[in-house]
Amino acid sequence: MSDLPKAVFIKEEGPREGFQFEKGPIPTARKIELIDTLSKTGLEEIQIVSFVPGANVPGMADADEVVAGFDKAPGVRYLGMWLNEKGLQRALASPRLTLQAGLMLTASETFLLRNQKRTMAQNLEAVRRMAQLYVEHRVPVQRVSVAAAFGCNFEGDIPRSKVIEMIDSLFAIGDEHGLDIGTIFLADTMAWATPRSIRQLVGDVRERWPDKTIALHLHDTRGMGIANACAGLEMGVAHFDAAVAGLGGCPFAEHKGAAGNVCTEDLVFLCEELGIETGIDIEALLDAARLAEDIVGHPLPGSVKSGGALSTLRRRLQRA
Amino acid sequence: MSDLPKAVFIKEEGPREGFQFEKGPIPTARKIELIDTLSKTGLEEIQIVSFVPGANVPGMADADEVVAGFDKAPGVRYLGMWLNEKGLQRALASPRLTLQAGLMLTASETFLLRNQKRTMAQNLEAVRRMAQLYVEHRVPVQRVSVAAAFGCNFEGDIPRSKVIEMIDSLFAIGDEHGLDIGTIFLADTMAWATPRSIRQLVGDVRERWPDKTIALHLHDTRGMGIANACAGLEMGVAHFDAAVAGLGGCPFAEHKGAAGNVCTEDLVFLCEELGIETGIDIEALLDAARLAEDIVGHPLPGSVKSGGALSTLRRRLQRA
Repeated sequence: MSDLPKAVFIKEEGPREGFQFEKGPIPTARKIELIDTLSKTGLEEIQIVSFVPGANVPGMADADEVVAGFDKAPGVRYLGMWLNEKGLQRALASPRLTLQAGLMLTASETFLLRNQKRTMAQNLEAVRRMAQLYVEHRVPVQRVSVAAAFGCNFEGDIPRSKVIEMIDSLFAIGDEHGLDIGTIFLADTMAWATPRSIRQLVGDVRERWPDKTIALHLHDTRGMGIANACAGLEMGVAHFDAAVAGLGGCPFAEHKGAAGNVCTEDLVFLCEELGIETGIDIEALLDAARLAEDIVGHPLPGSVKSGGALSTLRRRLQRA
Repeated sequence: MSDLPKAVFIKEEGPREGFQFEKGPIPTARKIELIDTLSKTGLEEIQIVSFVPGANVPGMADADEVVAGFDKAPGVRYLGMWLNEKGLQRALASPRLTLQAGLMLTASETFLLRNQKRTMAQNLEAVRRMAQLYVEHRVPVQRVSVAAAFGCNFEGDIPRSKVIEMIDSLFAIGDEHGLDIGTIFLADTMAWATPRSIRQLVGDVRERWPDKTIALHLHDTRGMGIANACAGLEMGVAHFDAAVAGLGGCPFAEHKGAAGNVCTEDLVFLCEELGIETGIDIEALLDAARLAEDIVGHPLPGSVKSGGALSTLRRRLQRA
């Protein structure tokens, strides 16, 4: 385990992932309550909303109110997500948010056709248009991302060469627009990754781009989230997306295939136990996880929120 | 990942772990239904009951009826558990079960004093008495086991040297009784293990006893179950206990969040994806996991039962 990083950076995606997914309705004030609780845990980046039409995603209908309502904590960047120009315009009109853009492609053309009604060529054009907009509006472009990088429920396993090709295309678009992009996000959108495929793909990407930061966006749909994060850590990956309490997923069978992000506090627990710094107060985060569960009104997938952190237990035993 | 075994052996503990833990009451017929469903999945060993007083563990009050009622499937060994001579006598009176004994010590003296009101010396004496009974009754002694081998909620981290010492003591007792014991079980009774401590302890034990089989009994209370199993596999461990759907918990840990054993179908999924043979039909096992959830009437922790197996998805995509 010699490649373990000394410290990791975790971007919290719980509010956006969770409130987008939950059937709700969840009162705006409670969404804000969770965001404000998360902002006191040591997390430095919290993605709080997605600027998508409320008619499509009812849980995001109050995105503007959420953005207007949270208490801005020092040292925390509050992020919004958008999928197209309309969403970007709403984000640009939200000065309380920090804007960080990414250029994203989906490794599965089947998925693309099915969900965005676009061919790969059309998608590349769309990415180009967004890159142009970022330049015009001076939105920093921080990452290139490949979705479904490990596999796709509609296409199957994704060859690593295809992911490398996508990243190449994204950097080429960045170059066309004079962008210096530092981070490569590999997103396991449909939870096909395993510790082995994490090692293989991260290895290939690192070999090709040794100077870029590699980041992982993992889903826990098939229970591999923490094992995959651990494989990433062992490959030196130090940037992760995660969702408090595993928001965005649900253990009930009716949410079949529900794809929650890897759980933030379980990931922080793993890091603590491996001696990796997170900058996060795990007890404060566990309180936020329990609050998230209270807000959604049903069990959420995270384990440490009921199992308890060992760092706390060790301190208690030392005092006894 | 070069030490991965070619095949693994999984002992199913779900019925015993689960029905012991659940508040129930669960009708005997439904317990038997789960056992009979599990016996058709390819599992070769299923631990179905614990011979403990029904007054202490109401879920095991019908153990004799369960043993009398299941349909014996060819190639399946049905196991019972016992903790003392009384329990052993009941197991000996159950010819439908396969008797496999183990010599067990707990690495935490605090836990021992608290839960069994015994000192370590008294516990060694108790193990000796049991070894004598096994010889007298010709019960094969298959394993030595160390409980709380990675840590204890009442004592903290357990030094690896202490675990090695326990195993030494157990083999010494085996030798005194002319027993040739092949397997060393390391039990993470209170879910303190992490991928790092799994590697360290398995490494130390293997170095000291290179010719013995090492087996892991893992709990998922802090969400590390699959990551720990993966670390074990990477160290060449090929024997695991697991519980379908993540049934059960540790009723003695006095830990509100105590979750069950590592989930059988999630472990089988991991093995499939790593190219390790399990001999188990994952779809049949997923049906059993959903049945377990139906029987207990609340969500159970396993993920693949809702996320779905990739082997099945790949076959479906190939046909399409």
